[in-house]
Amino acid sequence: MSEVFQTTTVEQMEADTARLYENAVKVGMDVWQDRVKNQTPHCGFGEKGICCRICSMGPCRISPKAPKGICGANAATIAGRNYLRMAAGGASAHSDHGRECVWKMYDATADGYYHVTDEKKLYKLAAEWGVETEGRDLYEVAHEVAEMGLNEYGKINGFQKWTQRATEERQKVWNEQGIMPRAVDREVVTAMHMTHMGCTADAEALVRQALRTGLADGWGGSMAGTEFTDILYGTPMPKETEGNLGVLDKEMVNIVCHGHDPAVSEMIVTFSETKEMQDLARANGAKGINIVGLCCTANEIAMRHGVKMAGNFLQQENVLLTGVVEAICVDVQCIFPNIGPLSECFHTKFYTTSPIARIPYSTYLPLTSENAGEVAKEIITAACNNFKNRDESKIFIPDHKHKASVGYSCEGIKGQLDTVTNSHFDVLDTYQPLIDCVTSGVLRGAVAMVGCNNPKVRPDWSHIEIMKKLIANDVVIVATGCAAQAASKAGLLDKRSKVLCGEGLRRVCTLADIPPVLHMGSCVDISRMMLLVCGIAKDWGIETTQLPVLGCAPEWMSEKAVSIANYVVATGIDVYLGIDPLVGGSDQMMDLITNGTTEWVGAGYHINTDPDQLVEDMLNAIEAKRDALGI
Amino acid sequence: MSEVFQTTTVEQMEADTARLYENAVKVGMDVWQDRVKNQTPHCGFGEKGICCRICSMGPCRISPKAPKGICGANAATIAGRNYLRMAAGGASAHSDHGRECVWKMYDATADGYYHVTDEKKLYKLAAEWGVETEGRDLYEVAHEVAEMGLNEYGKINGFQKWTQRATEERQKVWNEQGIMPRAVDREVVTAMHMTHMGCTADAEALVRQALRTGLADGWGGSMAGTEFTDILYGTPMPKETEGNLGVLDKEMVNIVCHGHDPAVSEMIVTFSETKEMQDLARANGAKGINIVGLCCTANEIAMRHGVKMAGNFLQQENVLLTGVVEAICVDVQCIFPNIGPLSECFHTKFYTTSPIARIPYSTYLPLTSENAGEVAKEIITAACNNFKNRDESKIFIPDHKHKASVGYSCEGIKGQLDTVTNSHFDVLDTYQPLIDCVTSGVLRGAVAMVGCNNPKVRPDWSHIEIMKKLIANDVVIVATGCAAQAASKAGLLDKRSKVLCGEGLRRVCTLADIPPVLHMGSCVDISRMMLLVCGIAKDWGIETTQLPVLGCAPEWMSEKAVSIANYVVATGIDVYLGIDPLVGGSDQMMDLITNGTTEWVGAGYHINTDPDQLVEDMLNAIEAKRDALGI
Repeated sequence: MSEVFQTTTVEQMEADTARLYENAVKVGMDVWQDRVKNQTPHCGFGEKGICCRICSMGPCRISPKAPKGICGANAATIAGRNYLRMAAGGASAHSDHGRECVWKMYDATADGYYHVTDEKKLYKLAAEWGVETEGRDLYEVAHEVAEMGLNEYGKINGFQKWTQRATEERQKVWNEQGIMPRAVDREVVTAMHMTHMGCTADAEALVRQALRTGLADGWGGSMAGTEFTDILYGTPMPKETEGNLGVLDKEMVNIVCHGHDPAVSEMIVTFSETKEMQDLARANGAKGINIVGLCCTANEIAMRHGVKMAGNFLQQENVLLTGVVEAICVDVQCIFPNIGPLSECFHTKFYTTSPIARIPYSTYLPLTSENAGEVAKEIITAACNNFKNRDESKIFIPDHKHKASVGYSCEGIKGQLDTVTNSHFDVLDTYQPLIDCVTSGVLRGAVAMVGCNNPKVRPDWSHIEIMKKLIANDVVIVATGCAAQAASKAGLLDKRSKVLCGEGLRRVCTLADIPPVLHMGSCVDISRMMLLVCGIAKDWGIETTQLPVLGCAPEWMSEKAVSIANYVVATGIDVYLGIDPLVGGSDQMMDLITNGTTEWVGAGYHINTDPDQLVEDMLNAIEAKRDALGI
Repeated sequence: MSEVFQTTTVEQMEADTARLYENAVKVGMDVWQDRVKNQTPHCGFGEKGICCRICSMGPCRISPKAPKGICGANAATIAGRNYLRMAAGGASAHSDHGRECVWKMYDATADGYYHVTDEKKLYKLAAEWGVETEGRDLYEVAHEVAEMGLNEYGKINGFQKWTQRATEERQKVWNEQGIMPRAVDREVVTAMHMTHMGCTADAEALVRQALRTGLADGWGGSMAGTEFTDILYGTPMPKETEGNLGVLDKEMVNIVCHGHDPAVSEMIVTFSETKEMQDLARANGAKGINIVGLCCTANEIAMRHGVKMAGNFLQQENVLLTGVVEAICVDVQCIFPNIGPLSECFHTKFYTTSPIARIPYSTYLPLTSENAGEVAKEIITAACNNFKNRDESKIFIPDHKHKASVGYSCEGIKGQLDTVTNSHFDVLDTYQPLIDCVTSGVLRGAVAMVGCNNPKVRPDWSHIEIMKKLIANDVVIVATGCAAQAASKAGLLDKRSKVLCGEGLRRVCTLADIPPVLHMGSCVDISRMMLLVCGIAKDWGIETTQLPVLGCAPEWMSEKAVSIANYVVATGIDVYLGIDPLVGGSDQMMDLITNGTTEWVGAGYHINTDPDQLVEDMLNAIEAKRDALGI
């Protein structure tokens, strides 16, 4: 008899959104639903990638009447340049976030706000990079490793150190294809230079540089972000939390941490637990302090501390519309500028903390390694003192929330696999049990569900329906970012959701005590997925391109997703997109990002804006990969 | 009695273009004039800077109906982000060109293709940077200085070394305003990250980062470009050459060098002079080899070798339409992709040489420090052997050309000023004679004419008419890039053009034996202008903002111009634009780039798309600066 378990449906989430929209109407502020209406239809030239604004002779637009821009750039050149610039924007964002994490370790001290938490991981990295550890102070090692990490962004010569973690086969491919990434920042500048007016017009060269720029992110800046974050704040291991708007608590001081870099949210979490702050909350009439996360910051602090997750990208205005948020504190990326004016319609205090994300109508408290605790205390104090300022007439908290098991870093996954291993006979700390499940057919394969929300499709619908279909077909899912949040909201991170799985995956979930969707972290943590696929390929003894493993970004929105898609493809994993990659105006570009990359690196894009079709395509592709392996 | 001297008018140039257009019609290929027609009218959203393509939820466009993008970004945010991205693109292009120049010095050897030519300048830089020179091999010093130069692009800590050359007052302003530039590549990545979806929405922060990114270029990457180029190939000193399409020679093998980085063109010039190549040209029936430059490559090789200049940006198709170009060889930037198909319509061979500018329909010969001479010989050989393949029916070379005095580096200008100094009484090697002319009123001031061509205005007209008006009013001009080329085509680099000057400037031209428009080099050499204004300010003992000196880009087109405008403004020099800066859709942005920057750094943009008005504005501003100084 299966357990009684109900997911939260997209219809139910939409009903919550509709109810909260009434609050938006009440305060007279627009939200994304309004703005989508105003902005529809979108410019067809832009959507197809054939609008060029790279110099001031234009803008130029490609049409039958005008097949070339003023300089002579055709559709392929224009779409290719725009595409590479998106990859460069995304790699910049991810990698610069990573850099900030490395800086925190460069600044870390035993008695400062930032310390080394995962010593083992630090020493492992030190050994990997040949840093002497014997008889040295922990922080001396940490600072040397951090300096080496920072150097990967701007070093004059050589390639990304992190790439040495990939399979030998991948490294060979990257070298042979001329896409082995150099210093992170240099790849971005190269991309910007190549796309400058009067530089590269050859679409193939632009797509190749997009792969290289992506690799500088995924096997460079993003990986630095993940690794140094783990060392600083601890490597995530499986733990329980909850997700969706129902995690907001009417009785508590609610503080929302939004953005990506956990440097701020870690401090908020830490200091919110102090007696001083708890007392202050109670003195203000609250039962305590309820920290909740939004977007990737949610993923970071849920994975490490079990902090509850309020939701993903398109949920950010909803969170404020509940009327119970005393403070929202943001760092970088994916923050609606509208959070500013919207927070002004409520009692909510809005804090920005990074020079990278200056937003009007916020209080700017720039966070440094030296003042981090003070900034956190200032925000928490203000939030507590703000509890009494709620307007009861504007309060509505939807009920929906789900239990969620999170924390499946590579180490977390291996640890869970070890529990189903007989330690007398088997080797521990490998992916072998997982490989055995796949080769035996108990699991058909795996899909990495990643990416954003995008109102171009029905938000969350694609994520959730695709995931349900995949797990029903015994395909295990690893998820990050807004995809993981969608799973959390629907209940697919709840271990009980195994009832939705096919028989094979259900058995694996039971034996390994995991949910069918494994939350691997934030968007920079797609670097974990790259280590996972390379780890599996190594343990299996086959190439990454042979694995029955796919990537899927059904609702991608940001430039980071373009960078990610490029490094996932370059790592040999096909990527299934549910949103057009903005190059549709050029057949040549479409061919290059599908067939072209497949020829060079063994993987490419597969695009289908119908989620039902997209998942069918993936299931077929997994079976084809299995057939090719003879399993 | 004034000399008989006639400029070439824009009307005459346009007649040449019209005649050459007949060749385009004959071969059935479009040229920019056609494409401008096809692309007109331009998209108003793009022109006003209020179209956002930074994420795939859009594109979004600001209108009365839709005052915000889907994320909530308003006109100021969108225009600001687009503006900063243009600055980042421009800084990337310029600075990456600079980096390639530094690499050439890093690779330089006494017996290789690249050597140290200006030892004095190398030793001066070594001293400036504290590099030991005593008893060391020249190339050991060169390599250490080059490594330090490369490090300025990616160093972890600290600010651009080159900024220490600015006046103390400027350095203080940059520090106080938080815009002192760090590593070049890092400023670009910071700009890309800030403009990523969900990051900075505050227009002021975006404009400030544009200033900082610009400074990383002008007082960083571009200055590296200029300095290392001078050390490698020699610091330009006054010399004579010729300009305009008439420099093509029907009897000779014509090879056009187009682009920016002189690494290729230097080799072409050097090897074209060898007996082997000259003999080959003659064996093919030509009288010899005629190397001509286009765009900034023209400026580079004219300044150092007196190579003739065929023209500027919008002349590039005209050059091929003459039918007498055996080969066109390009490096990076401002190269029409249309050069590819257009060259196929003639016997012209088209060579690309940089991985940064891959262009279809070209033969790609990637140039390295090791193969540079071989690449040059291959191109020259192919050109010589191609002489016989001309189609006589497609040949037309316009008559127009002018003598041109070029080579006015800072050293060149000082050298010329020294000739009017009494070495018994006066200090040499200063700008004092120039300052004396300005304080006495013989000269009213100076204008730096810079930037591109742009068909949004009547090409070259703005450049030439503004220059004529300024010199008639005793304002001396320094020029670079396409502005200098426009002057060359019109005859304003001919010393005899002093007849067009007011009485004061005419006298100065006669005494110092200079033309009224001083050609200072290519677009990266606007760094020379920055050193010039800081040098004058230091010698005068006033601030740069007080100087009766302005910048003017009446026909700017490329992102490099945006980067340049930002560093010129940040250096305290007002910039007069004849093309809208693509932020017109936001009053806030317009205010920030005019009044905002004036408040922070003492200079800003002044925009007037009517060239007659623009020059009036400048003359008034110069007089106002003089009044403020009491001169």
